Amino acid sequence: MDFTLSPDTEALRRRVKQFIDDIVIPRESEDLWTQPERLDEIRRELQAQAKAAELYLPHLPKALGGLGLNWSDTAVIFEEAGRSLLGPRALNAAAPDDGNMRTLSHWGTPAQHARWLKPLLAGDIRSCFAMTEPAPGAGSDPSALLTVASKVPGGWRINGRKWFITGAEGASLAIVLARTDAGATMFLVDTSNPGFRLGRAMRTMDSFAVGGHSELAFVDCEVGDDDVLGEINRGFHHAQYRLAPARVTHCMRFLGAAVRAVEITQRYVTQRQSFGRVLSDHQAVQTQLADCHIEIRAARLMVAHTAWELDHLEPTAVKHGSSMTKVFVSETVHRVIDRCMQLCGGWGTTEESMLAHLYADVRPFRIYDGPSEVHRASIAKRVLNRSMRP
Amino acid sequence: MDFTLSPDTEALRRRVKQFIDDIVIPRESEDLWTQPERLDEIRRELQAQAKAAELYLPHLPKALGGLGLNWSDTAVIFEEAGRSLLGPRALNAAAPDDGNMRTLSHWGTPAQHARWLKPLLAGDIRSCFAMTEPAPGAGSDPSALLTVASKVPGGWRINGRKWFITGAEGASLAIVLARTDAGATMFLVDTSNPGFRLGRAMRTMDSFAVGGHSELAFVDCEVGDDDVLGEINRGFHHAQYRLAPARVTHCMRFLGAAVRAVEITQRYVTQRQSFGRVLSDHQAVQTQLADCHIEIRAARLMVAHTAWELDHLEPTAVKHGSSMTKVFVSETVHRVIDRCMQLCGGWGTTEESMLAHLYADVRPFRIYDGPSEVHRASIAKRVLNRSMRP
Amino acid sequence: MDFTLSPDTEALRRRVKQFIDDIVIPRESEDLWTQPERLDEIRRELQAQAKAAELYLPHLPKALGGLGLNWSDTAVIFEEAGRSLLGPRALNAAAPDDGNMRTLSHWGTPAQHARWLKPLLAGDIRSCFAMTEPAPGAGSDPSALLTVASKVPGGWRINGRKWFITGAEGASLAIVLARTDAGATMFLVDTSNPGFRLGRAMRTMDSFAVGGHSELAFVDCEVGDDDVLGEINRGFHHAQYRLAPARVTHCMRFLGAAVRAVEITQRYVTQRQSFGRVLSDHQAVQTQLADCHIEIRAARLMVAHTAWELDHLEPTAVKHGSSMTKVFVSETVHRVIDRCMQLCGGWGTTEESMLAHLYADVRPFRIYDGPSEVHRASIAKRVLNRSMRP
Amino acid sequence: MDFTLSPDTEALRRRVKQFIDDIVIPRESEDLWTQPERLDEIRRELQAQAKAAELYLPHLPKALGGLGLNWSDTAVIFEEAGRSLLGPRALNAAAPDDGNMRTLSHWGTPAQHARWLKPLLAGDIRSCFAMTEPAPGAGSDPSALLTVASKVPGGWRINGRKWFITGAEGASLAIVLARTDAGATMFLVDTSNPGFRLGRAMRTMDSFAVGGHSELAFVDCEVGDDDVLGEINRGFHHAQYRLAPARVTHCMRFLGAAVRAVEITQRYVTQRQSFGRVLSDHQAVQTQLADCHIEIRAARLMVAHTAWELDHLEPTAVKHGSSMTKVFVSETVHRVIDRCMQLCGGWGTTEESMLAHLYADVRPFRIYDGPSEVHRASIAKRVLNRSMRP
Repeated sequence: MDFTLSPDTEALRRRVKQFIDDIVIPRESEDLWTQPERLDEIRRELQAQAKAAELYLPHLPKALGGLGLNWSDTAVIFEEAGRSLLGPRALNAAAPDDGNMRTLSHWGTPAQHARWLKPLLAGDIRSCFAMTEPAPGAGSDPSALLTVASKVPGGWRINGRKWFITGAEGASLAIVLARTDAGATMFLVDTSNPGFRLGRAMRTMDSFAVGGHSELAFVDCEVGDDDVLGEINRGFHHAQYRLAPARVTHCMRFLGAAVRAVEITQRYVTQRQSFGRVLSDHQAVQTQLADCHIEIRAARLMVAHTAWELDHLEPTAVKHGSSMTKVFVSETVHRVIDRCMQLCGGWGTTEESMLAHLYADVRPFRIYDGPSEVHRASIAKRVLNRSMRP
Repeated sequence: MDFTLSPDTEALRRRVKQFIDDIVIPRESEDLWTQPERLDEIRRELQAQAKAAELYLPHLPKALGGLGLNWSDTAVIFEEAGRSLLGPRALNAAAPDDGNMRTLSHWGTPAQHARWLKPLLAGDIRSCFAMTEPAPGAGSDPSALLTVASKVPGGWRINGRKWFITGAEGASLAIVLARTDAGATMFLVDTSNPGFRLGRAMRTMDSFAVGGHSELAFVDCEVGDDDVLGEINRGFHHAQYRLAPARVTHCMRFLGAAVRAVEITQRYVTQRQSFGRVLSDHQAVQTQLADCHIEIRAARLMVAHTAWELDHLEPTAVKHGSSMTKVFVSETVHRVIDRCMQLCGGWGTTEESMLAHLYADVRPFRIYDGPSEVHRASIAKRVLNRSMRP
Repeated sequence: MDFTLSPDTEALRRRVKQFIDDIVIPRESEDLWTQPERLDEIRRELQAQAKAAELYLPHLPKALGGLGLNWSDTAVIFEEAGRSLLGPRALNAAAPDDGNMRTLSHWGTPAQHARWLKPLLAGDIRSCFAMTEPAPGAGSDPSALLTVASKVPGGWRINGRKWFITGAEGASLAIVLARTDAGATMFLVDTSNPGFRLGRAMRTMDSFAVGGHSELAFVDCEVGDDDVLGEINRGFHHAQYRLAPARVTHCMRFLGAAVRAVEITQRYVTQRQSFGRVLSDHQAVQTQLADCHIEIRAARLMVAHTAWELDHLEPTAVKHGSSMTKVFVSETVHRVIDRCMQLCGGWGTTEESMLAHLYADVRPFRIYDGPSEVHRASIAKRVLNRSMRP
Repeated sequence: MDFTLSPDTEALRRRVKQFIDDIVIPRESEDLWTQPERLDEIRRELQAQAKAAELYLPHLPKALGGLGLNWSDTAVIFEEAGRSLLGPRALNAAAPDDGNMRTLSHWGTPAQHARWLKPLLAGDIRSCFAMTEPAPGAGSDPSALLTVASKVPGGWRINGRKWFITGAEGASLAIVLARTDAGATMFLVDTSNPGFRLGRAMRTMDSFAVGGHSELAFVDCEVGDDDVLGEINRGFHHAQYRLAPARVTHCMRFLGAAVRAVEITQRYVTQRQSFGRVLSDHQAVQTQLADCHIEIRAARLMVAHTAWELDHLEPTAVKHGSSMTKVFVSETVHRVIDRCMQLCGGWGTTEESMLAHLYADVRPFRIYDGPSEVHRASIAKRVLNRSMRP
């Protein structure tokens, strides 16, 4: 085993850290929460700066204009970027565009690449991934999918409802998962299609998702045969292909959020006095801070290991590890930020400390990409069926 | 020992429950978060309805227009009211007016009662309690108080800054704690006083505090000798007198928030399907729900016991129990609502489920009225000094 | 609600405390672990002293020679007795004799009372309760019962195996649960019956159970018709009648074990120095000690509430509360003693501190009388079926 | 980063696993607990078999007769060996001989090597490490050392008391830490020295330590100048040199204990029925099992990382990581085994399941080699002083 970063990766990490500290963090103004429309403008400005700094699309192949990092190095860079909730966006490495670009790149035709992938890579357009449905449709259990695509001459007609569709407002493209005759299929839907209806924005607790989270309706939404992404009836398979790395990239980014929370907290507790001593002299503060460091180290190793698996194993072989990492990291990150908020007292509950934002943005991660409960059940079934050693 | 509610209390509890369900909960529209100014209008309307329903001021003596409940019965009624974040306000039983009315009633002169207590009881005006200060002033450690009141002929001149002052926006009265020659003193400050400066609203994670949380400045703020509340230099003592019950009433109300979260969750998990079964058939759901019930029961007993102590013991003798109850209830309530959010999936992270509000409003309670860490240290010192049996 | 102890109960509590401190605790020599046969001798000597001190059988009616306490007062006294792992035995108030005496007293005939109940009350004999069976028989799920009693002229013939039968070695009486034609039935088996076979002693982690835990076999064990206890085929019902209070009495006693652990720990941390300060001056010590006090208070209230329910409600109505109390108290007690062991350092892991004994004796309680997992599932089913409010 | 095991290491791991399963585990008879004297005989027999199987001393250089593994590979092999509480002993890789051999090898003179190191490597003798003292001496805080060595012509005279000295009974050599004029010094004491007094065996909760844990007294114990190990007055430094890897090797071995507990549990829950289903079909079982796998993975990565640091960094640079790993692994291992015990029901609380042994042997590890509380405080101080990023 070898835990060294290559000098190149370490150098890149430092440049990203500098970029986040100097360029991105100053843009986390408190107005964002109430002016969501500003988020997309800031995204464009930051992406221009990231391009100039040659930090853009770090995780994508050089052929796509990226820096060509493997998963192990991506983990390091995404964590640095994740120190700001604006950071991954700045590098065009945020969900859902990130996963959508990978999906398009892997399954798309040259024509689809030209029409959708290219402007996505450039940051000229945004996209959303339309899978989740209101009850009784597809939630944690994708097989409950209710949206239907029926074959029509020359194409398909899609009908159904979606919700919690991140980034939908302002997106040019929706990748839609719909039921077809013998499974599910992915479709590329131009959001200017009259059958695509953007519904209400859902008021969720997080606030840094560009384009929010929306309800969508597909009403006799017609698309062409050339709008099928990948193979017909292989949509669940393609979605799985997307999800395993997607949940790991979330882990990478949110780990950075936990690191940021600890940085904020260390500054606070070494300055603020209480009961005649600086806060950091109180052992109850030290204890909680130590736990933050210990758990972040463990979480970082879990991420690094799964990143290594993504680099070296077949995607199906990574499922087990990515489930374990997702549970561990999402719960660790929440616990770390919760402790940080406690240590920063009243100030920590305000937006100006950023902790209230970090706290709120991280909480849903224990639910999406598979709630901890669902992952635990599948981890257990896997180890019991295969008598896997712990 | 006797754990029975009197028939009168039980009847009142049912009436409050009905009022909360029928009148108050329907007003929890999702607009509140972004239209804080509406909150005060809704408060007035609900208070009028509570008066009509004879549920107003349940916890205050009949002589003050209240229902005259003792602390034990107040605990039951406040928990019911707390099932809506608007509920305590509707009964005029919410912080900070609640504690301010008690403080005025106990230490105020007849003239102070006529000028301030009467309109507060009527709900015609609102008030705030100005104690907490930005660093390096009074936070968890009140003795760091920096705001100063200097004696001037016929009165006092107050200078200093405060922050996290709940309800300040729109308040007519501020009860101010300021350092005086040999201690601290409480002053009644009319917010139309030119020396009273309402600063910026602090953007905190909670959203149901009428009048928000603000910064204040007192700039050569002159008040008369008859604006001293209670005794000169006894301000810390008077504040303690206020705080012990205040933290218990918070427990009562927030316990109701936890109950509400479980009610919401039970409805959700018995209706929503996942993996071919209703959610409530999954044992991982059952386990977490059982823990909610177990812990709420324990928390309710902690509150009931401390309420009983408030009814029967000297205030100083209640300090130990109220500290333990505050730590236990604030942490339990957070854990319960966190589990509920997890069980309600994506929907639970939205405002429409109310869980995101309950979650955010409850989190700061582990910090204010003494962070858990401070309470734990004083609990331990007390038991070690007095060799108290556990 | 009323949380006062009557003066009589308080006086009795003090006498029990004195008895435990002066008479019982000095007998907790470290030889017991390796000389289990001494335990029964010590039991007899202590019981004689308890009789002389008029503290014997506190929980049983005066008609049976007891002190006639109701459940609420029993809770207080059992907790005091539980401060020594020998304490409940000294008062003849320990499992399984305690539950067996209640069962005999409630369902037994006058002849059964004369033959078995009388000497049990006197402490002249001991008994065991033979329900649990090795797989695939009755464990957490009693309905899997495999031991069978077949009708023969004038009586019954019992065949089957049991294990984890506490107190079997040296017992004169076994109350046996066996399957009969239309349910299960309880039988009184004299252990001198040739069909009663005492098997090997099971080496479990606890060490203060007089008579240990044994395997039993019933091999064509013939008993008379007058050895049926209670009604034929109503054995599961009678067992339930026994179990609900049994698990609450365990809670009462083990709560005392937690209290004892804290007493030991408070003495230790106020004397032992580390890093230049007495241990109790370290905040990490204070924090854990405070949590012990907080959780013991909550656990004591849970027990008191369920004791009150046992005094005032139908047994079936107590099931829900006794399940919740069992889960809460068994987990609290373990956590408290675990913290105490941590605070007492290496010394806490030795028998001489008694903490190793308290730790080991308390751990199995999270499993027997229903593992936490089974209770949680039934608590959840109950609240979901009846839409019970939390 | 690279998470691959070399083919050689993987092959060795399999051979060790086979050896533990086939040769060592069958020797874990339940008699050991009550016949501690048998342990040393079994050790000798197993060591002979390990030599024959070429698995002996895996972690020591080939020059010393070992297999020459680096720390990374040692981690893998020690974990496999740790699956049996007899395993590390079988490979002569158990505390305290393991650390003593390293210390002797590093600081010893050729004469000391000939006299002590050689027979220790061969397993012909055993040793102990005499540092810990009863209060008010050296415990978690080594600087409180009270045992004194005074210079006498040609050597030193040692006086003082020690306790919790593992392996003392039957040891031929004691490495003693004693205060000297300007610090502390390590001495090699032949236990046949008349000034060496073996005191009482301490009855601790663990039971697989060959030679138990004893009190020692040094009464005018004279040793020669050539019995100084390393440099005079550099004893604390030498002890630190020993402790950092020592605590990591404990982590490696105890991680194996957690793995073993899960193996036992997986066999149990896939065979035992409850409520009409095999236990492993209950989601509450699955959830806990999944957590075991997740946390073991994280703990293994923490160990692997620190092992890598031991291979590549200066010892002082490993201190931070080894503290974090010690806290994380000791707490994880305890939690995992506690869950396993819960899942195995009553059977898990018996020695025959081995879980009671694993549980008891692992608990003290949260205390020795630095209690979690002490490590947390020093981790926090380090990160706060150096503004270390999390």
